[in-house]
Amino acid sequence: MGYFRDNVERAEGYMPGFQPKATDVIKLNTNENPYEPSPWVFKTMDGIRPEQLRRYPDPLGNAFREMAALINGVQPENIMCCNGGDDLLSIAIRAICDERRPLAYPVPTYSLYPVLAQLQNCPAIEIPFDETFGLPGPLATTGAALTILCNPNAPTGSFIRVEEIAALAGKLTGVLLVDEAYVDFAEENCVALVKEFGNVIVLRSLSKGYSLAGLRFGYAIADPGLIEGLLKVKDSYNVDAVAIALAAAALEDQDCFRGHVEKIKRDRTVLTQQLRALGFAVPESHANFVLAQVKSGSAGRIHEELARQNIFVRYWNVPGLSDKLRISIGTEDQNELLIAALKGILSEGGDKS
Amino acid sequence: MGYFRDNVERAEGYMPGFQPKATDVIKLNTNENPYEPSPWVFKTMDGIRPEQLRRYPDPLGNAFREMAALINGVQPENIMCCNGGDDLLSIAIRAICDERRPLAYPVPTYSLYPVLAQLQNCPAIEIPFDETFGLPGPLATTGAALTILCNPNAPTGSFIRVEEIAALAGKLTGVLLVDEAYVDFAEENCVALVKEFGNVIVLRSLSKGYSLAGLRFGYAIADPGLIEGLLKVKDSYNVDAVAIALAAAALEDQDCFRGHVEKIKRDRTVLTQQLRALGFAVPESHANFVLAQVKSGSAGRIHEELARQNIFVRYWNVPGLSDKLRISIGTEDQNELLIAALKGILSEGGDKS
Repeated sequence: MGYFRDNVERAEGYMPGFQPKATDVIKLNTNENPYEPSPWVFKTMDGIRPEQLRRYPDPLGNAFREMAALINGVQPENIMCCNGGDDLLSIAIRAICDERRPLAYPVPTYSLYPVLAQLQNCPAIEIPFDETFGLPGPLATTGAALTILCNPNAPTGSFIRVEEIAALAGKLTGVLLVDEAYVDFAEENCVALVKEFGNVIVLRSLSKGYSLAGLRFGYAIADPGLIEGLLKVKDSYNVDAVAIALAAAALEDQDCFRGHVEKIKRDRTVLTQQLRALGFAVPESHANFVLAQVKSGSAGRIHEELARQNIFVRYWNVPGLSDKLRISIGTEDQNELLIAALKGILSEGGDKS
Repeated sequence: MGYFRDNVERAEGYMPGFQPKATDVIKLNTNENPYEPSPWVFKTMDGIRPEQLRRYPDPLGNAFREMAALINGVQPENIMCCNGGDDLLSIAIRAICDERRPLAYPVPTYSLYPVLAQLQNCPAIEIPFDETFGLPGPLATTGAALTILCNPNAPTGSFIRVEEIAALAGKLTGVLLVDEAYVDFAEENCVALVKEFGNVIVLRSLSKGYSLAGLRFGYAIADPGLIEGLLKVKDSYNVDAVAIALAAAALEDQDCFRGHVEKIKRDRTVLTQQLRALGFAVPESHANFVLAQVKSGSAGRIHEELARQNIFVRYWNVPGLSDKLRISIGTEDQNELLIAALKGILSEGGDKS
């Protein structure tokens, strides 16, 4: 008998994007927001008292729940705080899936889902998107205990309309988790579905829209019945006292949030056009990144050349993605430096492998 | 088919100790350190830069790993950062246990272990301590995939010598996790065993000795082979950038840590004597709490009377514990107020139900 379970021994684990230590790089590889968090977050940090660190935090993070309920037009009972959106994915899969209760999701999508399925030792039913990245019909009839739909989807940036997701929720016998980590950059979201359907969990993250990837804060929005089940599985104190206070402060400053989101959406349009002008195929994105397909030459080679110039974008050498680069939307300056670097690489033939 | 797994539907979930919102109470119910965290922690918080919040944290928390390795005389490869000690318990059980791979532990002990076993749907083999709370012989031969030994044990405060634990590690075919959440208040610890045994995981917490219960920080010390397996199961970014920095700062200030620990140990001796003088049976404790057995009268009633006076201690109305109170060591003043309140309750017969 090995020390670990066989499925864990076999697992490769999730490989997070490269996190360079240097700060003088152009980091467009893990979809961080290029703008600083709200000043109100730092004001709040200045007010953290020793008692908040000495004592256990509020197990439910009610200060955050109340703020998130207000922002989303729901009740605090509809909210569960999480140590990043990934914490919610892990909690939901552990609460809902096992060897006899499969997980289903369309592919390509966030590469953590199959990793979590392997760790939970549950079957993973992967339904391929067609090239339009619309909702795949067979997703409604897999019989899975949990279906995850990343919307906007990563790494494609594509978006499925809420009315289509509502129809899917109505057809499913199991739970539907809509991973809205990137929804701040889209035109609509699924929060209204949690009032209509008892089987819908909406995942939100503060890592992208609120510039708080370093803080690890996400949350669930769902029917109180679902929240109650998820709470049993979450660690009692899964979010710390500092994170609760800072995350609530970030939500409070909606002006800052909206300002950054609008800038990123505007620059997304510009970057998409510039990349297309350079010969990349770039579908319309509803997230804070674009997926650029290299029409001639090697995406892997461009990725390497950019890294050599301290410009980091994301590349996966796997079928369906090996000819594409996922590029986070940076500041205007960063995007321009990226475009200039790409022009250089393409003209020097650095894209040929 | 229900939305959740049957074992989750059946689960009650862990019930954390009461966390009063008010700060003008005497809170001796969840084993927090009564002293403020090191000033160096707050200096470090003042230096948190926006970039640390905007960007994803270091997935491995290497700044903390290096400091913890230094303090414990091991290598950074021997350390895994966790979002509180509970995160490590959950990771270890998910990595090692399943329906065919049992968990074993002596009882009574930390009441989270059976909760985590139920969530993982693995058998829980409970081996009773005898009244001396020495290492139960049968623990060595359960055939469990994972054995957890809480040492010092909660809620008894009892301690098993390292040489006995070494002998246990040598006999076990599975993994031994020594939960040393309270070891800062004991005379020795198991860190040396991770060099000798490839199957030993030592759990540490910054919640007690370092006064950082609000920050959620714990860590594993183990052979790099074990750490590698555990890393596959942990969330990629399970500890946030602020927590990594503040936890490392807390370890750095060993003078502050040692000063607080020594005060608590001294006051533990005094409180033990005072409780015995009041007629409680109080075994010697090696932790930052004592377990006081009520020899005549009702422990539940004393617990209620104390709460009415805003003095909170921990009480479990379960077999073996229903005649006992677990009391965290407070400041000298808090301990004196507790003793005065107990004198009043006992003399007025408020302990009779």
